Amino acid sequence: MSSPDLSDFARERFSPLAFDERHVIGGDAVEALLEAAGRAPSAGNSQPWAFVVGVRGDEVHQRMARHLARSSSAWAPTASLLLANLSRQLVDDSDLEYSEFARYDLGQAVAHLSFQAHALGLAVHQFRAFDRDAMAAEFAIPHAWEVTTMAAIGVPAHAPGDLAGAGTSRERLPVAEIRWEV
Amino acid sequence: MSSPDLSDFARERFSPLAFDERHVIGGDAVEALLEAAGRAPSAGNSQPWAFVVGVRGDEVHQRMARHLARSSSAWAPTASLLLANLSRQLVDDSDLEYSEFARYDLGQAVAHLSFQAHALGLAVHQFRAFDRDAMAAEFAIPHAWEVTTMAAIGVPAHAPGDLAGAGTSRERLPVAEIRWEV
Repeated sequence: MSSPDLSDFARERFSPLAFDERHVIGGDAVEALLEAAGRAPSAGNSQPWAFVVGVRGDEVHQRMARHLARSSSAWAPTASLLLANLSRQLVDDSDLEYSEFARYDLGQAVAHLSFQAHALGLAVHQFRAFDRDAMAAEFAIPHAWEVTTMAAIGVPAHAPGDLAGAGTSRERLPVAEIRWEV
Repeated sequence: MSSPDLSDFARERFSPLAFDERHVIGGDAVEALLEAAGRAPSAGNSQPWAFVVGVRGDEVHQRMARHLARSSSAWAPTASLLLANLSRQLVDDSDLEYSEFARYDLGQAVAHLSFQAHALGLAVHQFRAFDRDAMAAEFAIPHAWEVTTMAAIGVPAHAPGDLAGAGTSRERLPVAEIRWEV
């Protein structure tokens, strides 16, 4: 049973395990997704994020697909859009931490991108199943940045409940258990 | 100039620096906010989050307000709802990391909560200006969990552009600068 006030986004969002390979994403949609991500709040407005952008069929998409793990290579390249989500860990070439909240803020930015995707009829599946070092080398990512996660974005090729068992559980703790008892 | 496809949420969201003290938040809204947070995706569905919940006027809200820094104590207690946002760092009492993505996933959960807040006509201002150790002690938060951020939630008492200069800049990098050059 879910809260009567819950938004459509919270009700409907899921991480697809298969994407519609006929769907082609347009430049306007890519622009809107990145702009939504970039408008996320961050500690001191530090904006500790950047995105490698590959559209299915282009060279960047192919270069990213080479460094996926076996598990994600089965489905992620079918997405219209692949992103490598970078968080800024260090101040340029120094050993100084750029922001204590770099990963927290990147998570927020990708969540904001996910709302925007939903508004465009698209869905997002984030994952860690890729070779982080190889991906960083492929795109000459400097030491100050981390390829924290990736995201596959497109039109789902299945309903939320389908392909059950193909991924991790979608069950959530009840609200009473995430509300800290005081 | 913003993308024509950008959602209302991405266009309108901001972090208020003053809240309407006449607004009282209902239990249904609190439930919807926490449920939206809990439905966020997380690495392996690890759900590394929990929330201390204080409604203005109740005892928890008062106990939280005591540990705010001077900067946030000027405005955060005027919010209808105060949250302490906890990320799970360790597996119970061991030294094992619970999830590499604990803070990343908490950031996502708070972003999902922010989207739900917008759907309810509310706005969220996250902050780090509080005494982390004192807050953890106040609510007997065990070592395995971190009070990563706080959030003040309510009806804004000003428009986005007002109170300029009172906080950090709201300017964002253009999309071309967060898109990694390849």
